[in-house]
Formats: sequence, C-alpha cells, structure tokens
Amino acid sequence: MKLNKDTDILIVGLGVIGGSYAKALTKQGFRIRTITQRAEDVEYAIKEGMVTDGRTTVDEDYVRAADLIIFALYPHTFVEWIERYQAYFKSGALITDVTGVKSTVVTQIQEILRPDVEFVAAHPMAGRERSGVLYSDDGVFRGANYIVTPTPKNTPEAIGTCRELGWLLGFSSVCELSPEEHDRMIAFLSQLTHCIAITLMSADAGDGLERYTGDSFRDLTRIAKINDEMWSELFLLNREALLAQMDTFMGEFEKLRSFIADGKREEMREMMRKSSARRTLFDKKA
Amino acid sequence: MKLNKDTDILIVGLGVIGGSYAKALTKQGFRIRTITQRAEDVEYAIKEGMVTDGRTTVDEDYVRAADLIIFALYPHTFVEWIERYQAYFKSGALITDVTGVKSTVVTQIQEILRPDVEFVAAHPMAGRERSGVLYSDDGVFRGANYIVTPTPKNTPEAIGTCRELGWLLGFSSVCELSPEEHDRMIAFLSQLTHCIAITLMSADAGDGLERYTGDSFRDLTRIAKINDEMWSELFLLNREALLAQMDTFMGEFEKLRSFIADGKREEMREMMRKSSARRTLFDKKA
Repeated sequence: MKLNKDTDILIVGLGVIGGSYAKALTKQGFRIRTITQRAEDVEYAIKEGMVTDGRTTVDEDYVRAADLIIFALYPHTFVEWIERYQAYFKSGALITDVTGVKSTVVTQIQEILRPDVEFVAAHPMAGRERSGVLYSDDGVFRGANYIVTPTPKNTPEAIGTCRELGWLLGFSSVCELSPEEHDRMIAFLSQLTHCIAITLMSADAGDGLERYTGDSFRDLTRIAKINDEMWSELFLLNREALLAQMDTFMGEFEKLRSFIADGKREEMREMMRKSSARRTLFDKKA
Repeated sequence: MKLNKDTDILIVGLGVIGGSYAKALTKQGFRIRTITQRAEDVEYAIKEGMVTDGRTTVDEDYVRAADLIIFALYPHTFVEWIERYQAYFKSGALITDVTGVKSTVVTQIQEILRPDVEFVAAHPMAGRERSGVLYSDDGVFRGANYIVTPTPKNTPEAIGTCRELGWLLGFSSVCELSPEEHDRMIAFLSQLTHCIAITLMSADAGDGLERYTGDSFRDLTRIAKINDEMWSELFLLNREALLAQMDTFMGEFEKLRSFIADGKREEMREMMRKSSARRTLFDKKA
C-alpha cells in the first residue's frame, strides 16, 4: 500500500500518542478519522483540526472504510479490540500499533488475526510525561526513533508502508528490530531506567532534601513521574527481559559498592573511565 | 570581615571551579589573585581578565597579603597544602573551600589549623562535566545552591562572610547544613546518582543499543562522564554515608524487582504513584 491523500486512515485511541499521530498526519495532508472512548476528546480533536471525523462507538461500516488502522491503546485493550471487532476490517487492510513492548503483543495479535489483514508492529520511541489528547504534540517525534518490529509473517510491502509512516510522522530515524531484540533494548534503555527513577523516589533519604536538588538529580528522576496503569502493564508484559536487565544492573552496582567498601580506588577509577568512554557513544549526533 | 573592593582575595587552584569563582568575582569588581600549578593557566586567566595576577609557586609574601583565601583543590591536596604552608597566612585571614564532601575534610582542617585563622567550609553545588580553567563558566552558579557547612568552631561573623560570598558568586540559594547533614544529602542527591550512571554504563546490555537511545536515557547517564580522580576520592571520603544510601537504594530496587517477578501489579502501581507524587517535590520552582 502506497500512502497517499486518498488513503483512509483510522486512529483507534486518541490519547497523547494517538493525538500526536493525528496532528502529524493532518499536517502532511491526510484526512484522519478516529474512534476513541470519550466524546469530549472527539469534539476537541475536530475543533483543533486534528481529525476530520470521530466516533465513540465501534461501527462496522466506520471500521470497514479504513485502509490503514493505527492502534494507540494499552496492550490488553488492543488485543481485546482485535478479538472483538476484527470481523469489521476491510479485506487487505493494514494495521499497526504504538505499543511499548513487542514480543508478547505481536505474537498474540498475529495468532488471532484474520489472514487477509496484515499487522506490522511499530514503536514510536517518543512520548510525554502527561497523558490525554490535550497534551498531544507531534514535535516530540523530531529527533526520536521509530522502530518497526516485523516478523516472518509480514510482507516487504507492508513493512515498507509502516516505515513510510514513521518518516511521515516526522521521526528522525526509522529502523527495524525483531520483537525480541526490541524488547531487550527497551528493557535496558527505558524500563530499567524507569525502575531506577522510581526506586530513587521511593528510597527515603530523609526529609527536605528536595531543597538542595541540582539539575543532575532532576534529570535522573524526571521519568519517576509515571503513568502507573500503563507502565505496570508494560513491565509485566516484558517481565523476562526486564528482570534480566535488573539483575545485570544489580550485579554491577554490587561490584561498585564493594570497591567503595573495600577502598579499591584503582578498580573504581577503572570502572569510571570505562563508563565515561562508553557514555560518549550515547551522545546525540550533531 | 565585610567583603569590599579592598579585600585581597586569593584563589588556590585555578581549575574549572576556581576559574568560575575568579570570573564571577572579577565581574563583581573584586581584584583576584591566584596560585595554581600550571603557568599556562595563569597566563590564560590574566589574558582573559579573570585574575589580576598569578603564581605557580607558594611564596610567603604572596599568601600573607590575602584576607580571604579560597581553596579549589582536591581534598587531599587541600589538607596537604594547609599542613605545609599555613604558617604563611596573615593572622585573622579567612579561608574557605569548594570541596564536595565535608565531615572528614572540615574535621581534619580545623584540627590542624592555626587558631588565629578561621576556616568556614562551603560547597558550591554546581559544576561542569569538563575540568580545567578553560571550561570555567560562572553561569553555572545561576539556579544552583551554595551550601555553607559551619561547625561550633566557627564565628557568626565568618559564617556571614562566607554566605555573602555565595550571593556574590551568583548562586540562587545560600543555605547552611552541618557537615554530617551535608554529606548525607550529597550521598543521596549526587554520589548515589553518579554510582547509578556509572553502573548503567558498565552493565553491558549488548552492542549497538546507543543507536536507539532516547533523551530519558541520555539525561539519566549524562553524569556517567566523570572525573575518575576526583570522584573516587570523594566517594572514599564519604564512604559510610554513600554505602548507607546505596544499601537503601538496593533494598527498594529489590522490592520493585520482586513485585515484577511475582506479578504484583497493585503493589507496583502503588510504588509508582508514590514515586510520581514525591518527584513533584523536586521540581524546579518557577
């Protein structure tokens, strides 16, 4: 499917990410329809010119008109939606998603999905600390990565369309990873760091410390403001990969602790030098 | 001592922090002299108008002329300097420092210091990831905290002068903590977070992950670029307080790990909600 102005695009779930998709695609000249839970979100999105039309109910004809359907729902809601309404899809429709974990979700969906509809999974690695369509902002896609996670069930054509979508949304990088590689990566780069931020905020170091907070500490704990409903689901869906990263982290942390406890200064310095050198790899490219 | 344009100020150690002090105080109209190791740093600072004069050797008359001496050295170098050269101080001189840990250093210095010279310790909670006078920038003091850590040996007058220095340097907040409270605070807000960043960079999660890095991960690990000579010394000087914070952190991290492993979603959500609420306390005040 080549995306063009006649492609009928439906976004299911108009939260902060669904809304940001709607904004970006509308700016690109596409006409976007939406199905979402709350009537005020539909009204808001139409008033703001983010979508041309919207519904709060799942009507058969409304779904069947769509060539491309983007699911921006919590993982379990996405799976339930497919189970319940997939009979409504147009034959040949392409569906994609924005889910933050892949292996479990992709496997589940591809197992139950009608054979004449293709699902290519993708993860837009961008977001905001707030949820809800009012906070949608397609500017967050600039500088960010859009990751397509195809499986052997996917066709090159559908993968290509999904990649094209990433570029149209304004992402700075579009790449492919297997669902398993994606989940290992996300366990380290995103879930582990959220676990650390949560832990730092739970570790009570005494009252009043916030008065002395510097920017480093603020940077490190910014992500401690977390949507507990979504993240608890994502953590559990990626349990094995996340626990593996947590264990690796704890092992290294214990090593550093023992260097400090035993006064092994040269070992500490060596670990710091390696850490400084490795961090350079993660710098933003100019 | 009331600081005025006739106050003779000597900065010992013209690195990134000493240099930033020199810049800030020169802008305030003070005449600053320096003693530092490298001749090229003295030349650079004079050329840039950061100091009016400088030396690479510790001359008796040069030290004796100073009313206020600011030590911007590594902790052990600071202690050694006092042991070796304190006979040169003018009677009634005030000395202060920039050391990042307090209890050990303050106790050591106050034990050996001449009774006619007063040492009020302070910690400017600002810095840069680079070291050396070329990277000095008094802009880093804006929005930051200057913490004075007096002991019962200090006089209200000298504490007042040291606080005044914090405001003159351009800090947004000047406060007082006991050396022990300071060290507990710094163990949590600064040293623990550096340990975490180092650990994240040492935990090898597989090759090539840097390609997928987002801003959250960059924020969290920015401080993994670390001056290993300085930080290993600071960690060891604050060993007890730091180990206590590391242990509290590990305990909470293990708790979160077990919630994930055992699928205890409600417990995870409760921890996340508390973490979000507590993080709000650490937001920058507008």
